Amino acid sequence: MLERYGHGGDLESAAEAYGRSGFLDFSANINPLGPPPGVMKQLEQALPSIIRYPDPGHRGLKGRLSAKINLRPDQLCIGNGAAECMALILLGLHPRRVGIVEPCFSEYRQLSEQFGAQVQSVFGTREHGWSADAAEIEGLLKAVDLLFLGQPNNPNGIQYDLNILRHLAEEAERCGTYLVVDEAFIDFIPEEKRQTLLPELGQYPHTILVRSMTKFYAIPGLRLGYAAAHPDLVQAMTGKQVTWSVNGLALMTGEACLNSGESYEHDTIELITEQRRWLALGLRELGCEVSEGAANFLLVGLPAPWTAESMQTEMGRRGVLIRSCAMYPGLGEEYIRVAVKAQEANQQLLKVMNEVMG
Amino acid sequence: MLERYGHGGDLESAAEAYGRSGFLDFSANINPLGPPPGVMKQLEQALPSIIRYPDPGHRGLKGRLSAKINLRPDQLCIGNGAAECMALILLGLHPRRVGIVEPCFSEYRQLSEQFGAQVQSVFGTREHGWSADAAEIEGLLKAVDLLFLGQPNNPNGIQYDLNILRHLAEEAERCGTYLVVDEAFIDFIPEEKRQTLLPELGQYPHTILVRSMTKFYAIPGLRLGYAAAHPDLVQAMTGKQVTWSVNGLALMTGEACLNSGESYEHDTIELITEQRRWLALGLRELGCEVSEGAANFLLVGLPAPWTAESMQTEMGRRGVLIRSCAMYPGLGEEYIRVAVKAQEANQQLLKVMNEVMG
Repeated sequence: MLERYGHGGDLESAAEAYGRSGFLDFSANINPLGPPPGVMKQLEQALPSIIRYPDPGHRGLKGRLSAKINLRPDQLCIGNGAAECMALILLGLHPRRVGIVEPCFSEYRQLSEQFGAQVQSVFGTREHGWSADAAEIEGLLKAVDLLFLGQPNNPNGIQYDLNILRHLAEEAERCGTYLVVDEAFIDFIPEEKRQTLLPELGQYPHTILVRSMTKFYAIPGLRLGYAAAHPDLVQAMTGKQVTWSVNGLALMTGEACLNSGESYEHDTIELITEQRRWLALGLRELGCEVSEGAANFLLVGLPAPWTAESMQTEMGRRGVLIRSCAMYPGLGEEYIRVAVKAQEANQQLLKVMNEVMG
Repeated sequence: MLERYGHGGDLESAAEAYGRSGFLDFSANINPLGPPPGVMKQLEQALPSIIRYPDPGHRGLKGRLSAKINLRPDQLCIGNGAAECMALILLGLHPRRVGIVEPCFSEYRQLSEQFGAQVQSVFGTREHGWSADAAEIEGLLKAVDLLFLGQPNNPNGIQYDLNILRHLAEEAERCGTYLVVDEAFIDFIPEEKRQTLLPELGQYPHTILVRSMTKFYAIPGLRLGYAAAHPDLVQAMTGKQVTWSVNGLALMTGEACLNSGESYEHDTIELITEQRRWLALGLRELGCEVSEGAANFLLVGLPAPWTAESMQTEMGRRGVLIRSCAMYPGLGEEYIRVAVKAQEANQQLLKVMNEVMG
């Protein structure tokens, strides 16, 4: 299994496992367009700045982000990746009981247990198109101190309706539970279809939105994410953050990405929407069961007798990496996740999978 | 006061305070030679790798570092700066009582309190050349769960003798206290004069050495440090580390720095040793009291009526940043710290200070 560290995108483990390099990587969900135009050039020009400490107050990026998403800087916590934001939430708010809706991003459970919380879960099921029942999520929210919810959810791309989120946020206020909505992949959804509490965040002082900047802007190697929440929660989080945790090139590049203009955002969303449909079709033609979802990845059930492990190995040897989902509670050993990339790469994925199955 | 975030090197706060840019920065202690030759070029060539996740196992850098300092990879924890290593030590070993030898790096206390420990201290005093009494340190070690000791110590450059360290490490084994020796600046000391437990670390499973790679190799914007300790302690630390906490460019640059050859190391040490002596002399001629120490910075007592604050302001307006030490417990408001830089910069420091004192 490639997921020795719990995640996709681990090219070092892949190189060790298959004795080769030069992989086409469908195991990590990164924007296939790469960073916005001009950003790599700006990053190159900023390299001499590494001889200075990063701004411990993240002032430049906070100001720019604040303007872009229409929140005050004191509602923002910049993190060394979205994963650090989740860790800071747990360290700052120290919930004893954490709720998760499985299958979901493995770090919700891992970080919660790492920092001493007990984890309870409800499940989205195949029969309900992988959505969990809203009443069950609400029941869980009432039973815990903090609930993580992916929106859209990894690995199935489920997006819950805004009315469900509103209801959860209101319940969270009533019972004093923190609601953490992980929007790491929400930027890939067309704006008119995004279901987010962001514009009304001020009404919900127990709700925290977590966002990643590394997936949409294709800079995972740099690490950058943020959380948006009530200033008191932001203070609790930054109170646990190690000074200079966010590196200087990530701060600079984050600003450059936010300044890069709307056509890149538009092109990305158009490409992902179109290619997701096309790739889902192709996978179904190979006999797979595909949950299309709303994100830049697909949850795929392989036809018998294929398992995630056997398919991962066969494809890995041929230079194509996929994510095994066998380790996700709630999913069987036949589930994999593949990123949606550009046409040519997606064709290659289907071609290699066809060869393997053939 | 420039140290709004507790540290030097904060150019954003300086720009806000003095309404200018282009500072000569003596408030952060970074190698004046800059990164090793060729490293910037390698970093530039590695930029396209930011579209991939960093190796969560830090395998390449661990392997290289392991060979360089003659430890096994399982004795090493790579961190997002030395500060993250300290946080992981506290999170992984959760000491209730932490001992520090003041004046010292402010993060020992800050991080300890941040993660719920109580801090006790003993003091190095001016009368004893800023060294703390060895028996007092030992008494403190016995009274706490974990002791931080800077070697050489920031801000006074004090280096304790190897025999004292050995004795403390042995005592730490006897009473089950963790001894954390912060060697962030030790690379600036000529090898034959370094007092370090590194070669005999295997004998002391309660001792942890913390090192920074950002100061000596002049890459603080990238964030990189490591801890060396018994594999059980390393596991306790990495068990609290957020996945991908160390960014990909830092990992790559760290390897490049370790491969850069000995002449850069030799040149750096020679420059610092010579310039520290020269700068100390110049500062004494201006009426300052200088503790020379063994590191790449000087603790300086200003002649009355100057205070750190008044001097910092006057010099900041003229484009030169110094570190106020007024906030360090055990130091009065007349203390500043200045980095040792190359000849021309050091001359400029003395010239501007002379003008100010005029």
